[in-house]
Amino acid sequence: METIKNFLNTNKLLNDKVRLAIMATLSTGDEALEFNHLLEKLELTKGNLSSHMRKLEEAGLVEIKKEFVGKKPKTTYLCTEEGKKECKEYLSALESLITSKE
Amino acid sequence: METIKNFLNTNKLLNDKVRLAIMATLSTGDEALEFNHLLEKLELTKGNLSSHMRKLEEAGLVEIKKEFVGKKPKTTYLCTEEGKKECKEYLSALESLITSKE
Repeated sequence: METIKNFLNTNKLLNDKVRLAIMATLSTGDEALEFNHLLEKLELTKGNLSSHMRKLEEAGLVEIKKEFVGKKPKTTYLCTEEGKKECKEYLSALESLITSKE
Repeated sequence: METIKNFLNTNKLLNDKVRLAIMATLSTGDEALEFNHLLEKLELTKGNLSSHMRKLEEAGLVEIKKEFVGKKPKTTYLCTEEGKKECKEYLSALESLITSKE
């Protein structure tokens, strides 16, 4: 039953399904993700997606890269080492929960 | 990116970390779980735990078994087939998200 407690103690930011989905994708792939790409695929509003990403950035889990491609602004997200660690902890704790026979 | 959408479309009741932890434990083990045991390990109030379990029961994900052991009431939870299905879908969708390189 310690496994349940470990799982409940993982990063609270990952409780939200959208943020967990973004972080699981960002932390395990090698690629950065673009704002517009995420927007289209997650079917969120711009404000909603920005708000999620800002929370993740403020917590140090993602880095936001802003640049211009020609005259168009482009926003890309990268997972930080801290983000990878937190995400790994979340997923391992969940895996332990599933496989444990306590 | 379909993988993100699949994950976001899994059962909303499992968005809550406590309910996910309970369901992951119930659906993958062979054992039923007792109310008092869960109460102690999850460090929730009785009302809070009851409320979570009622939601899971109303959605058909768990069955609640109430009986007397001597003079003491005993409440036990079992995962239904539906609960196993929903939990499996949640976990597979999350796994696809982690392993997919879309």
